[in-house]
Amino acid sequence: MVLVTEKIRKNGEDPIFLLVQELKKLPGIGGKTATRLAYALIKKNKSEIDALINAIINMKEDVTLCSVCYNLSNMNPCAFCSDSNRNNDTICVVEEPSHIKVIEQGGNFKGRYHVLHGTISPLDGVGPKDLKVQDLAARVEKNGIREVIVATNPTASGDVTAVYISRLLKPHGIKITRIGLGVPVGGDLDYIDPMTLNRAIENRKEV
Amino acid sequence: MVLVTEKIRKNGEDPIFLLVQELKKLPGIGGKTATRLAYALIKKNKSEIDALINAIINMKEDVTLCSVCYNLSNMNPCAFCSDSNRNNDTICVVEEPSHIKVIEQGGNFKGRYHVLHGTISPLDGVGPKDLKVQDLAARVEKNGIREVIVATNPTASGDVTAVYISRLLKPHGIKITRIGLGVPVGGDLDYIDPMTLNRAIENRKEV
Repeated sequence: MVLVTEKIRKNGEDPIFLLVQELKKLPGIGGKTATRLAYALIKKNKSEIDALINAIINMKEDVTLCSVCYNLSNMNPCAFCSDSNRNNDTICVVEEPSHIKVIEQGGNFKGRYHVLHGTISPLDGVGPKDLKVQDLAARVEKNGIREVIVATNPTASGDVTAVYISRLLKPHGIKITRIGLGVPVGGDLDYIDPMTLNRAIENRKEV
Repeated sequence: MVLVTEKIRKNGEDPIFLLVQELKKLPGIGGKTATRLAYALIKKNKSEIDALINAIINMKEDVTLCSVCYNLSNMNPCAFCSDSNRNNDTICVVEEPSHIKVIEQGGNFKGRYHVLHGTISPLDGVGPKDLKVQDLAARVEKNGIREVIVATNPTASGDVTAVYISRLLKPHGIKITRIGLGVPVGGDLDYIDPMTLNRAIENRKEV
């Protein structure tokens, strides 16, 4: 009967163990947190579990890329692209869709967005062609854009991407700025408080 | 068109927002972590999402309470109750099924378990009848148990529960011990390292 215990522990047929393994694949979730979450899920009743699973499935089915700004949304164009009360002359360029939410929480920026879905990072084999950069140039050419604010993370690859965008768009004769003081170096926009983000947008400077 | 943005933000029909709300219901998951997890889930492909959902469903369908020790398991009796290589004369009493895993990681304890599913806490309206305490007395009476180790958390309600169990089982003439030095006061077994747990089991003392 020892084998039974061993089987449970080793080959992963135990459903709790399997769920812990799946949860550990999520970013920032280690073994202990995954175990805690798994037991929390076991204690939930069927309707609570259904609500979570439905939310995941609906998100996966309904959320698509906005054809204008490449934000993730259940509408196309997304709410920020279709909102007629926002300024058409300014585009804020971000690395990830989640960064739009952080800037919106700040509340000072009322222009449009453009999501790159990454940054230029030669070491990781990511070049400009892997990002939505060319589409940004096309947007600037077509519409009366006066300023592009580059709000990539204040990291090496974020800075490289900002310089690349600056050189790409300079021929269009528009103002290209980079969010400035207030964003800690090496940080990530996912973890910055809205007030700091507001300061960074106020203090943006030309690159 | 402002209304579109407002609708997305306020009434929660946005699938990303809905998923964040569901994830926030899990213990230890705040707004920022939930947002990070939601965007991580969006980036996963269909087979990765299916693996996670299946793991949750399988866990919910297959995991039941062990009829002997009240551990959560996909077997009944569970692996610890059906393993003939474990000692039958010692029972370790824990608050939650997840605490068994922590003690097993320590590796020193080779007896049986009993899960109370909570602790006596009059302020929360939880009395002995709400726990699997009477079933523990029945187990002690039926089998040749020589020692019961109470491994409830070193909190007020964990201590009260230990004293209650001690008084309940004393008439049976068995040894009743409490895990000792090594477990920090006010802590929670979910977060204790296996070596500390081993020391606590070595240093147990009679109550």
